[in-house]
Amino acid sequence: MPEPEAGPGQVLLKVTAAGVCHSDIAVMETPPGALGFELPLTLGHEGAGTVAALGAGVTGLRVGEPVVVYGPWGCGLCAMCAQGKENYCTRAAALGIRPPGLGAPGAMAEYMLVDDPRHLVPLGDLDPVANVALTDAGLTPYHAIKRALPGLLPGSSAVVIGAGGLGHIAIQLLCALSPARVIALDVSPEKLELARAVGAHETVMSDEQAVIGVRKLTAGLGAQAVFDFVGAPPTVAIATAVAGLEADVAIVGLGGGAAQVGFGMLAYDAAVRAPYWGSRSELIEVLDLARAGEVGVHVETYGIDEAPKAYERLHAGRVNGRAVILPGG
Amino acid sequence: MPEPEAGPGQVLLKVTAAGVCHSDIAVMETPPGALGFELPLTLGHEGAGTVAALGAGVTGLRVGEPVVVYGPWGCGLCAMCAQGKENYCTRAAALGIRPPGLGAPGAMAEYMLVDDPRHLVPLGDLDPVANVALTDAGLTPYHAIKRALPGLLPGSSAVVIGAGGLGHIAIQLLCALSPARVIALDVSPEKLELARAVGAHETVMSDEQAVIGVRKLTAGLGAQAVFDFVGAPPTVAIATAVAGLEADVAIVGLGGGAAQVGFGMLAYDAAVRAPYWGSRSELIEVLDLARAGEVGVHVETYGIDEAPKAYERLHAGRVNGRAVILPGG
Amino acid sequence: MPEPEAGPGQVLLKVTAAGVCHSDIAVMETPPGALGFELPLTLGHEGAGTVAALGAGVTGLRVGEPVVVYGPWGCGLCAMCAQGKENYCTRAAALGIRPPGLGAPGAMAEYMLVDDPRHLVPLGDLDPVANVALTDAGLTPYHAIKRALPGLLPGSSAVVIGAGGLGHIAIQLLCALSPARVIALDVSPEKLELARAVGAHETVMSDEQAVIGVRKLTAGLGAQAVFDFVGAPPTVAIATAVAGLEADVAIVGLGGGAAQVGFGMLAYDAAVRAPYWGSRSELIEVLDLARAGEVGVHVETYGIDEAPKAYERLHAGRVNGRAVILPGG
Amino acid sequence: MPEPEAGPGQVLLKVTAAGVCHSDIAVMETPPGALGFELPLTLGHEGAGTVAALGAGVTGLRVGEPVVVYGPWGCGLCAMCAQGKENYCTRAAALGIRPPGLGAPGAMAEYMLVDDPRHLVPLGDLDPVANVALTDAGLTPYHAIKRALPGLLPGSSAVVIGAGGLGHIAIQLLCALSPARVIALDVSPEKLELARAVGAHETVMSDEQAVIGVRKLTAGLGAQAVFDFVGAPPTVAIATAVAGLEADVAIVGLGGGAAQVGFGMLAYDAAVRAPYWGSRSELIEVLDLARAGEVGVHVETYGIDEAPKAYERLHAGRVNGRAVILPGG
Repeated sequence: MPEPEAGPGQVLLKVTAAGVCHSDIAVMETPPGALGFELPLTLGHEGAGTVAALGAGVTGLRVGEPVVVYGPWGCGLCAMCAQGKENYCTRAAALGIRPPGLGAPGAMAEYMLVDDPRHLVPLGDLDPVANVALTDAGLTPYHAIKRALPGLLPGSSAVVIGAGGLGHIAIQLLCALSPARVIALDVSPEKLELARAVGAHETVMSDEQAVIGVRKLTAGLGAQAVFDFVGAPPTVAIATAVAGLEADVAIVGLGGGAAQVGFGMLAYDAAVRAPYWGSRSELIEVLDLARAGEVGVHVETYGIDEAPKAYERLHAGRVNGRAVILPGG
Repeated sequence: MPEPEAGPGQVLLKVTAAGVCHSDIAVMETPPGALGFELPLTLGHEGAGTVAALGAGVTGLRVGEPVVVYGPWGCGLCAMCAQGKENYCTRAAALGIRPPGLGAPGAMAEYMLVDDPRHLVPLGDLDPVANVALTDAGLTPYHAIKRALPGLLPGSSAVVIGAGGLGHIAIQLLCALSPARVIALDVSPEKLELARAVGAHETVMSDEQAVIGVRKLTAGLGAQAVFDFVGAPPTVAIATAVAGLEADVAIVGLGGGAAQVGFGMLAYDAAVRAPYWGSRSELIEVLDLARAGEVGVHVETYGIDEAPKAYERLHAGRVNGRAVILPGG
Repeated sequence: MPEPEAGPGQVLLKVTAAGVCHSDIAVMETPPGALGFELPLTLGHEGAGTVAALGAGVTGLRVGEPVVVYGPWGCGLCAMCAQGKENYCTRAAALGIRPPGLGAPGAMAEYMLVDDPRHLVPLGDLDPVANVALTDAGLTPYHAIKRALPGLLPGSSAVVIGAGGLGHIAIQLLCALSPARVIALDVSPEKLELARAVGAHETVMSDEQAVIGVRKLTAGLGAQAVFDFVGAPPTVAIATAVAGLEADVAIVGLGGGAAQVGFGMLAYDAAVRAPYWGSRSELIEVLDLARAGEVGVHVETYGIDEAPKAYERLHAGRVNGRAVILPGG
Repeated sequence: MPEPEAGPGQVLLKVTAAGVCHSDIAVMETPPGALGFELPLTLGHEGAGTVAALGAGVTGLRVGEPVVVYGPWGCGLCAMCAQGKENYCTRAAALGIRPPGLGAPGAMAEYMLVDDPRHLVPLGDLDPVANVALTDAGLTPYHAIKRALPGLLPGSSAVVIGAGGLGHIAIQLLCALSPARVIALDVSPEKLELARAVGAHETVMSDEQAVIGVRKLTAGLGAQAVFDFVGAPPTVAIATAVAGLEADVAIVGLGGGAAQVGFGMLAYDAAVRAPYWGSRSELIEVLDLARAGEVGVHVETYGIDEAPKAYERLHAGRVNGRAVILPGG
């Protein structure tokens, strides 16, 4: 493939690392017509690289600068984008704007075109391979957690369901950002072990005894925040059942489960929501946490030719942490 | 009945007015064993009166002072009660503490015993008959609305489903507290007329076209807050369907409906919750709004002998606003 | 002057209206070397116009679209700019980025070059002459007020000192956004009359009796928010003296006064700050308020040749509301 | 002295430990007429003990239960007290209500009368001697810090001026509650050493180079929160000079210094305030942090006969941490 050229306002990136995500598998498994964008598509919505060229009119970045890509591209002008919440752009659908790797060409290539410098965040001296996954697997839980922080007072508990790619980062974020006791749930003993290694105070097998287990750990009061990174029917049921008064419950995983919310069905004022990715400033904040040594991603690396193997292992639930492709490696 | 005596720490109230509520009907229709408290019971969880006597050790109130009763009694000592959120007391169930009229003797009597002066709020020169219903029918929507206020920015919309006893007050509260455009939904043209009279900017029939109607009124974006005072399966479905990005959705009504919350099922970060009643300081705030002329209750009054008639009319959906019993009248 | 050309990423504006501001006079009165930018300079940091041409790579706007200029330009990439808070850009000074009319060429000309489409907000069908001043004289008080809103509960009071260009808009904003009672202070009876006309509930002469007057109006408790649009030593002293517990006190005016903050010097937890202009999304919100009819600017219009007269009247304190230049008129 | 008797609504405490505070010295040094209360007075506004007797009507506590005293007593009924913010009671002054040890008889005695069970918080299995100082020296910084937390994002810095009794606890609180980098300032190398031992990431001598030092540590941006536990003219000047954009600056110490706040005098939207003590729920939260091992007080103990010696050492600045009297020891 020829090296693409940066048009006015664009930035050309030489890709260093690209993260592998469950959403990619969802894209590959969706029938082409149902996707809303055309195939073939270069995957990769988690990308890191160095600035290779600046299009006309671009300022504020320099060639050679190491950066990561902010993925949830929006119009830049609507009321949401004006706050940097491009993940909630109200015009993207109408204008056909889609994230790289999920509609626009992504990071699993030698070069990648970024439409605007605002979609890049300087990495500084952070290692691109170790941190590229923070752009989604870090930003998504960070965004989910940030809204719950005001309720995570001393004495509170936070439940993380699913200690995989996103969950094992969520645990670290909760420890860094709040005084809450972190309780991790998973069906896999290895993932519970990882959970404990990255800071979970308690672990509970995610089975039919899980609700009783969490209630016992929380003096019967339930947790003040619950993050479900699986989102399947059984985990969503656990998520609402362990929520305490005024809890924040975020269904992050794409497992198709639906929480039932109504009077008397869960604790009063426990709020259930389904967030998506995160904002530009939140990505800056996640990288600042990494810089302070507060969050790290467990990474397995693959050459670009080994990408199929990476996806196979991910699909089989065998990736412990996050898989990263090195297009230049 | 003999006049009860105020024990140490208690306050005896001469009742002026007592509000009639749908919850009372729920109590009357529940089989006795399922209630969690013994019958017969003096109903009346909305009460106003004058202080008739102060028990030993009570300070800060004077005999003759007009007051209303804060109904959701708690232990006064737990972390929730320490913030005045006795509606969410974590020890009330274990200690057998119940609201007056919903377990403890209520306001539909000549005299009422209040267990602690903190459960009374001075009325000042507010009319007790016109304002007694604010203690539940005003406080409950106020509590639900207060949490949604940060999202009710200029340009936003708020949907009120059910323009009855609570809903017609909610509309006034939204107009007084936020710049949001208020859209009221009901199945009754008379209630929609009441909605408009008390300030709703738009009204929509609550039928199968309602979602399309609200979406059209909100430029396709949905509302930033939704308050469902019915809570039945069809209204809950409307509530989630009209919610926009980051909306606050409160299911207040006891209609047994369950909102379905999961990824892709409603707008991103729209949070669905079921609140209950309100806090002590929120009741003070509601009365301050009444004092400023920002909120008024549409009231029908009945003598204590006419109470059965009041409940009949309420049950038949024929009370426009709120029914109030005058025990001394 | 020849029509300027829009470079890559830029937008050329045909100016419809430009607001006249006290800051302009400050610029004219500052010795050239002390300004931090070169003269001569086209003034005008409040600008409205229609899109005349789009530079290469610009999307999301169309030629002919009516817009206003967001004035406090920043780098677009730092943590502040990533939230649209370009008024607090942490790199603008180092990069030499300055607002139009305050360093970059401003709106008092037939055409104006805007460096990026994100610095424009669509006007829709709002009248540009009537609303151009909202970009500073509306946005600045809106930004100051927004942070105080959580404390402006029912029963609270808000004090506006100085009912001029910014103050008379602040009064309208407070009425639209909060249930607070608005108390306006000024030394001019005409301005107090304007204050009352735009919604102030109470007015008080801003003299040595002012503090006593406000204390009396607030039952001795003071106000929960104070906005000083004068910022001179005597008004700043009033501002802190009338602040109640946990009040928000914003010193907005450039009058050189300094509030004294220390233990026992003002009410506990009353917070005193000096805000500056506002964010991109806040400008969108202000325009939404105007669209809802909640805020309007009292405007005097002048042709471009009459600009000196406009400044003379402003300097003499004779402009009631805001002066606007019509470069095309 | 005879054992006092618990009247209706009161609780009698057998005192286990009483904290020694700078405010006590201020009381002793104030001319009697200027105090607002009568002498002699039993000092001790930090108290721990066991419940010795319950007055008539008191529920929710049991004899023998270990508790600490919540000191800033209020009326219990006003809008502030209704939220548990009795430290900001709006009626205490008018009703002559004063904290124990600062107007009412305090904890430096064998027995202490507490006017209401709401002024006691169960200690559980926390050691009373080690934790009694949390009721003021812990609660006061906790209250000051809590309001600053939303601004203490990843990448931010928090400055603590004065690493003494309150400051060394503030440092621990900041580490437990936020991801901010904590920078401690003091004039004493020993106190800077203590600061580092309890978690401060950086320490800076509090001299005329201090502002330059903090600016350098914060990449020129200043800190997002500043807590001045000295409050003297030079420290207050440092506090405002090191504050960054939108910083929270709390002047907690009684040193008589006044921060100067006005346009151009400190960073935009940096808010300066003087808080006082804390709320009931905040005390519960502080104790929960102690229970989690996140905060501990450096304590020196004295018998009741050694109280004068404790005050001498405190006055001489020789107490490292907090001095505690054991009335029963």
